Parts: sequence; C-alpha cells; structure tokens
Amino acid sequence: SEVKKIAVLGGDGIGPEVVGEALKVLQKTEELFGYKFETEHGLFGGIAIDEKGTPLPQETLDLCKSADAVLLGAVGGPKWDNNSKELRPETGLLGIRKELGLFSNIRPANVFDCLKEASTLKPEVLEGTDLIVVRELTGGIYFGEKFRREGANGEEAVDTCAYSVQEIERIARQAFDIAMTRGKKLASVDKANVLETSRLWREVVIRVAEEYPEVELEHILVDNCAMQLLRRPSSFDVIVTENMFGDILSDEAAMLTGSIGMLSSASLGEGSFGLYEPVHGSAPDIAGQEISNPIATILSVALMFRLTFGYHDAAKSIEDAVEEVLNAGNRTTDIAVDKSKALSTSQMGDLIIAAM
Amino acid sequence: SEVKKIAVLGGDGIGPEVVGEALKVLQKTEELFGYKFETEHGLFGGIAIDEKGTPLPQETLDLCKSADAVLLGAVGGPKWDNNSKELRPETGLLGIRKELGLFSNIRPANVFDCLKEASTLKPEVLEGTDLIVVRELTGGIYFGEKFRREGANGEEAVDTCAYSVQEIERIARQAFDIAMTRGKKLASVDKANVLETSRLWREVVIRVAEEYPEVELEHILVDNCAMQLLRRPSSFDVIVTENMFGDILSDEAAMLTGSIGMLSSASLGEGSFGLYEPVHGSAPDIAGQEISNPIATILSVALMFRLTFGYHDAAKSIEDAVEEVLNAGNRTTDIAVDKSKALSTSQMGDLIIAAM
Ligand SMILES: CC(C)[C@H](C(=O)O)[C@@H](O)C(=O)O
Ligand SMILES: CC(C)[C@H](C(=O)O)[C@@H](O)C(=O)O
Repeated sequence: SEVKKIAVLGGDGIGPEVVGEALKVLQKTEELFGYKFETEHGLFGGIAIDEKGTPLPQETLDLCKSADAVLLGAVGGPKWDNNSKELRPETGLLGIRKELGLFSNIRPANVFDCLKEASTLKPEVLEGTDLIVVRELTGGIYFGEKFRREGANGEEAVDTCAYSVQEIERIARQAFDIAMTRGKKLASVDKANVLETSRLWREVVIRVAEEYPEVELEHILVDNCAMQLLRRPSSFDVIVTENMFGDILSDEAAMLTGSIGMLSSASLGEGSFGLYEPVHGSAPDIAGQEISNPIATILSVALMFRLTFGYHDAAKSIEDAVEEVLNAGNRTTDIAVDKSKALSTSQMGDLIIAAM
Repeated sequence: SEVKKIAVLGGDGIGPEVVGEALKVLQKTEELFGYKFETEHGLFGGIAIDEKGTPLPQETLDLCKSADAVLLGAVGGPKWDNNSKELRPETGLLGIRKELGLFSNIRPANVFDCLKEASTLKPEVLEGTDLIVVRELTGGIYFGEKFRREGANGEEAVDTCAYSVQEIERIARQAFDIAMTRGKKLASVDKANVLETSRLWREVVIRVAEEYPEVELEHILVDNCAMQLLRRPSSFDVIVTENMFGDILSDEAAMLTGSIGMLSSASLGEGSFGLYEPVHGSAPDIAGQEISNPIATILSVALMFRLTFGYHDAAKSIEDAVEEVLNAGNRTTDIAVDKSKALSTSQMGDLIIAAM
C-alpha cells in the first residue's frame, strides 16, 4: 500500500522516550499489516529553542506540512519557563496549531476498567464513563489581540476573545459528526448568560443541530459542566466547547478518569491530516529515567490510524494489545500500586508490541 | 448594641424558602446574644422582572446601599431564560456586584465529616479538605466590552477581558490577608502561558507577595488547577483567581466536597459591607415543596456575622448548631441517604435554632 509519511516531533522531557515506543509500534504494524510508514524527525519545543533559537523552526513546519500526520511527544520544562514569549515551548504549540489549521482538538476520556482504582472518584460513579471532549483550538481568547495599555486607573492588560459564525459552525459540525458515530448525545458548553461569544456559539450550535435531528443536544453552562463532570461523568457522550473552556474541562475530564497516563488526543483540520499526542505533559521531573508510561502515545498512534489513515484493523490490534497487557497486571510506575514491580518504558512498549 | 440593617433579597425558586429559615436564625441570635437586626425585603431577580420590569430595581439598589449587609437567596429560573439580556435575572446579579463594588467573592469549600459520603470523590482523598476560593468579581471578561461585528469571514462576536494593576492588587491583598488567618498557603491561578491579563496578574501577585513573606505562594495554570483540585484537594488552602476562572473552579471545588447544599459565600467590597448567599442556585424544580436545604443560607448568616459584623460568638453558635444537628443524623432530601426520612426545610431550620 501507499507509503504514509509521519512527522515525528519528540519534543522535551519524556517526549522522546514515549515517542520511541510508539515508533516501535509503527514498525510492528508494518510487519503485521503490510502498511508502509516513512518517519522523519523534527525539532520542536524547548529543544528547538536550544538548537535553533525558536520553538517552531521553519523546517519543522515544512516537514509537518509535507507529512500525512504528525506524532508529537510533549513540550516544555522549567528550563524555558521564564523565557520571553517568543522563546517559550507553548508558543510553538500555539503556532503549529494555527499554521497547520488544526481547529479541532479531540480528547477521549475513558476509563480503563483495570485502572478504575487509580481515580480519585468512586468506582461506582466512574462506571461506564466514556466521553470525548471536542475543543475548538485556533480561535477565542487564545488567538485574539493581546496588549497592555494605560487605562483610567493606570496600567491594564487586555485579551480579546472573538469567534466567527464560520469557526463555530465547523467545530460544531465535527462534534455532531463524532456524536453520530457514538451515543448520539452532544453537550455544548458555553457561558451564554454572560458572554457575547457564547451567545453566538449557542445560536450557531442550535442552527447546526437541525442537520442532525438524531443527536440529542444539551446546552450547559461552563461552571455547571465543571460540576456535572464530577457528579455524573458517565452521562456525557460528546462535549463540544470553545478553546479556553475546552482547555480546562478536558483536563478535568482526563484527570477524573484516573487514566491520564493512558489518554491520547488528536488535533484535526480540514481533511484527514492530523497531529496526535498524549494528553500528559513532558514531565521533566522523571525524564531520562526510563520510567514514563508510553501507553498514551501508543494509543495516539491507534487514533492516528483510525482518524487519518482509516487503518481500523491496525488500530484495533494496538488497542486490544494495550488492554491485554494491562489486564495481565503490567504497570508502569505512574499506574502501579506496587511501585517496586513497575516496568520500564521500553518493557511496557515491548509487551504491547508482542501482544499485537 | 447598635442596630444592624440587613437587606433581604429572597429572589426566585427556593430562594425565599431558605432565606425564611435564615431570618429565624437572625431572630434567635437577637434573643440569645442581644444583637439587634433590622431587616427589609427587596425585589431582585426574576420576581423583580415580573413585578417591576427589571431584575435590579433602583429601590432595591438603594435599599442595599442603605444596609450594613445583604442576604440573598438565589435568582433565576426557566421562566426568564429566553428573555433578552436586560430582562434576565443574572443581569441583575452582575449589576448588583458592580453597583455595590463587590470585587471579591469568597467561597469556602470544606467537607462536612458526616457528609463525606455524599461526595463522588473517595473519602480518603477528601479527608481534610478545607479550602477557600477568592474570586475577582467585578472585572475581566464578565465586564469588558462585548459586541458583534462583521469580520473577514462574516459575523463575529467579541468579548474583551481587561484587568488593571489596581484591580489585581486589591484582590491579591485580600487573598493574602485571608491566607494569613488560615494555613498561610496561597495558590494563584492564571493562564500566564497564553493570556496577557494572566501575565499581568502574575506580575502583580508576585509584587504583592513581598508584603506577605510568611505566605507560601504557588502559581498554578488554570487547566492544571482543574486537575489538582481532583487529585489533591486537601493540599489547597486559599486559591485566588480572576472572574471567569473563579466561576469555574469555585463550582468544581464546591461540587467535590459533596456538600454543595451546605456551602455559603460572601461578596465583599472595600470596608466591611458584604453580600451573603448560598452557593447553590434557585433550584426551580423543587421550589415550593418545602424540601430545600436551608443550611447554606444559614451558614451565610454566620459568615456575615464573622466578616461584616465581627459577631464571632453568634457565628460560632450557628456553626456548632449546624454540626450538632447533622451529627445527630438529621438530613434534608438533598443530603439524605434514606430520602423517606428526610426533613422539610423548616424542620431543619427549627432544629438548628433549637441547637443554637
Ligand atoms: C501549553 C498550553 C498552551 C496548551 C493550551 O492551553 O492549549 C496546553 O495546556 C494544552 O491543552 O494543549
Ligand atoms: C449567574 C451567573 C452570571 C453567575 C456568574 O457567572 O458569576 C453565577 O454562575 C455565579 O457564580 O454567581
């Protein structure tokens, strides 16, 4: 079959380690299923700042644009935290989203049965939780005008949050499309009792909903959603929301599953191109110790297979392998009850590959 | 002693019921401690829209301004949800905050030992949770310019988020002051890796921190805070944040305690004046059935005694009475395990008064 080109951005902290295991999974997929991948590494984040003086070098951007998909580890660390804005890893992250037109961030938050105990929520509350947060990723207060000014009472800072009908329409459509493939329930989160952007958001979502008569639509205020995620997580199917609210709620949702080391994410634009990364961060405190959990990154590869390449057979093989390995009691430190029995990053990767 | 004037705004839904029980507590306090209160009722919220055509009539505002403190039930309900902005209860709420200069919202989120089971979090995680969220209440995206415009891609909506040094300073000082009376730990929540207002927020908080060398200050990004509240709630003491983040995080914090029917709040300005209200809303679905839980409103009176009047003896008597009544197994429906044994609103109120 056709060769698929994957841009590989290891990034910082544990990023390169976990991506290393995901690359082994790609290779195993070639052997097992006959798919062909071409991978090319690029510098991104803190390491790119160190080596190229910018978190998102032009050659990395060109590499991503020439690829069919991007696999990202994680970026950031204390080393760059006090840099000026242009020299911070997260600026690269915002840049790559904007430059590649990745307007939609998709984060499944599901509970791994064997890990239910890792959550701080009661198991009976979590039971059956399997939701997806669809977050708008290139608009809102993240990308609006930002400045300082002299106000009536001295210095002020300003951020602007703007949303166009078009931006809301395309993310709403994507959320409805995803809901159609699942439980056909969509919760649209806004703050329409206060924000003008939220009022437009709600208007547009209601209009788009007419195209999806089978989907049950609920509007929920962001503060209430933060509560309901705790009270009735399993009642949610797909949640769609704007950039800033999505940042907060998707992290809350991820944490409540207790499976944060296991969660993958996709950032999508028009067409099938996508950027895939684990939800967890760069964890600089444990980098280089070979104890990080590679499962979220491996599952990000499965998500890439499903959403960008349509390789559902290979995706299923990965997902089943992960479940089998976990069910057999294998754990990395982050999810181990008995830490002394924890596997290393590559031991976990090898077991998953063997189970594929 | 001096007569204290309290403006009483019952509002909508269960508001008037729960406020009714709080008024009994005021009366009992007069008998027991010799303090004198003068109460005057005002129309506010949906009921004011119905009777006066505006959620915050001028006479209600004048009443509040002439009072030493305001006791509020709750506002809102489906009846007014589709009204235009000026005719919605929440517009009254935003208006009263701005007009009375209530720049600080204080929400204790503590766990009642006898109610730990009501939380969806594991009891061992909740153990010892006792935090306060200090939310900036009259700035940020809530009060910035809002409009629609024709953009490059058609209609857009815009919200503006602005913060001045002065606004950040006064809320930071208040949070530090509160931290000094408690565990001397302050978590300042922002999104300084993305927002200009957050960068200014962090700068100012760091500057104000110099005045409070004894307080241990932590800066935490809002998405991370949404996670850490779930992971280690008991590690927080005081959390300070801007208006929108505070709306979300204070509701998350309230819900995780499992005690949302029990939580009180204060909105304060310069000086001792304050508005006190339960954290729970107007619950229109159960209004008029006399089954609502009056404890949050009764504890809001205790908070008023502490923060506005300095009546610590009476506050303690109320707080102890609530604990005693709960420890004896008395419950309203919302917190009852066996709903058939639940008390009515006024039965609960009477028991608390008797225990004072
Ligand atoms: C690092 C930061 C800019 C980023 C965001 O806020 O989008 C991160 O929190 C995320 O969710 O991917
Ligand atoms: C009703 C609404 C405007 C209000 C807010 O967002 O401030 C409420 O959620 C609150 O927290 O008091």
